[in-house]
Amino acid sequence: MLDYRLLEALGAVIETGGFARAANKLHLTQSAISQRIRQLEFLLGQPVLLRSTPPVATPMGRRLNNHLQQVRQLEMDIEQVAQNEPLQIRLTVNADSMATWLAPALASCELSARMAFELVVEDQEVGLDRMRNGEVMACICSEARAVNGGAVRALGVLRYRALASPEFVARYQTRERPEHLVEAPCLVFNRDDQLQHRFLASQGLPAPRRQHHCPSSEGFVKMALAGMGYGMLPELQVEPEYRAGTLVEVWPEASLDVPLYWHYWQTESSAMKALRQAVTTHAHQVLVQPD
Amino acid sequence: MLDYRLLEALGAVIETGGFARAANKLHLTQSAISQRIRQLEFLLGQPVLLRSTPPVATPMGRRLNNHLQQVRQLEMDIEQVAQNEPLQIRLTVNADSMATWLAPALASCELSARMAFELVVEDQEVGLDRMRNGEVMACICSEARAVNGGAVRALGVLRYRALASPEFVARYQTRERPEHLVEAPCLVFNRDDQLQHRFLASQGLPAPRRQHHCPSSEGFVKMALAGMGYGMLPELQVEPEYRAGTLVEVWPEASLDVPLYWHYWQTESSAMKALRQAVTTHAHQVLVQPD
Repeated sequence: MLDYRLLEALGAVIETGGFARAANKLHLTQSAISQRIRQLEFLLGQPVLLRSTPPVATPMGRRLNNHLQQVRQLEMDIEQVAQNEPLQIRLTVNADSMATWLAPALASCELSARMAFELVVEDQEVGLDRMRNGEVMACICSEARAVNGGAVRALGVLRYRALASPEFVARYQTRERPEHLVEAPCLVFNRDDQLQHRFLASQGLPAPRRQHHCPSSEGFVKMALAGMGYGMLPELQVEPEYRAGTLVEVWPEASLDVPLYWHYWQTESSAMKALRQAVTTHAHQVLVQPD
Repeated sequence: MLDYRLLEALGAVIETGGFARAANKLHLTQSAISQRIRQLEFLLGQPVLLRSTPPVATPMGRRLNNHLQQVRQLEMDIEQVAQNEPLQIRLTVNADSMATWLAPALASCELSARMAFELVVEDQEVGLDRMRNGEVMACICSEARAVNGGAVRALGVLRYRALASPEFVARYQTRERPEHLVEAPCLVFNRDDQLQHRFLASQGLPAPRRQHHCPSSEGFVKMALAGMGYGMLPELQVEPEYRAGTLVEVWPEASLDVPLYWHYWQTESSAMKALRQAVTTHAHQVLVQPD
């Protein structure tokens, strides 16, 4: 049997990103954490953490952490554990789900009042990596293929439109001359955000030359409203602005659909199953459902 | 004179967080980037980057990058450079400024149409560190003291209130028994967010026992609206919800003020000065001004 005190130390360092923070979380001294990590490495005959800033798990470290998370998830089903403390649920989600439909979906789960959520907002690829490493119990992203040992359920589609302020559209004449979109300032969430590039490509245009990077869903809307640029925005997020005409389409009727999936472990606890079912049901009502 | 091609390679690795991405950014091969970094280290007789994932700058690497950013900022004043390409402005800001008042403030700068913003959303301490390392040209945060070589201007105060849905307030009876706030689920932005703790402390209460972590400004509002928890929200962000009564105070008349400052380098280009003046003027109109 593994010594789970050692694994807990490892898990805490990976989760918090540091030895001092891990010590804080587990109410131990920092040297106790270091000692447990060293003991784990001695037992296994190989390193589990690179001592960089922040520390990075080795492949063996990741495998152990993955195992620890699955054991924790299974422990949720033991009533004694579940009744005494809130169920800790770690979930990676894409920023636009967090900014739009996810909160009421989580609230629709009957058990949610007994849960404590740790929501991690990540780009798709990073989110799935965290799932693979076992750092999270579930992941909402647009990858349709399950990870090893995992399963996947379709949630529906988040529909994006290319929007800007009416003044912006008039100034750059994007409706008369869509090629102006290449030179007009374009809002991009971060380096990994390819939605705007995909939209331009769908119109036969090259990548946008002038970009503002704004890694905040609400900031993105505010930048568009302020006339700083155009960008792909989820319909769900900007209904009032769209209805009021403070955000308009830079090119009529152009939309992009991003499918969303719920990734989960096959060793799912009953609480996680209840959460998955509630979120899936809610998502099927609010997201666009493909035919 | 330093070889700025080498420094540009270093700056690109630090900015993008990887050799491959740096190569992509500078339209070079990855081995050309590695070679430039090695050449720089050979010239200086010491390492400038730790080869971790992502690579981390050594103190010397940070100093060089800081220098590079300042040189770039000064170059902005050379007309030939400024007219041919957009002015790249890197700025760290706190998430709640991005979600509320900042976009129209940036837009109010006459030169903003010629600028390309790279906004980096960071907690206060990380944001200031990026400023110290010279990774950004300016930083909006609540630290009043200037960094070495920098200066600072007061912007005003972001006022927070402890809000939740009316159902939540009724269920946990927080108005009759404020001590229920300790056990009631509390929304926390991330591990560094101490606003909720400070609010409870101001009411003579200990830290909240049940927390949901939600590192998204808009998600935070959505979680509160969905009745998942209570949290400190900027008045500026939730005016419509507060007026409509879908978010109410968990304890009457309790507010917390967070002062905000614009940090900048003393070697400020004229474009950065114009931006600072525009943002400061706008902030003085929309943020609470202390007497």
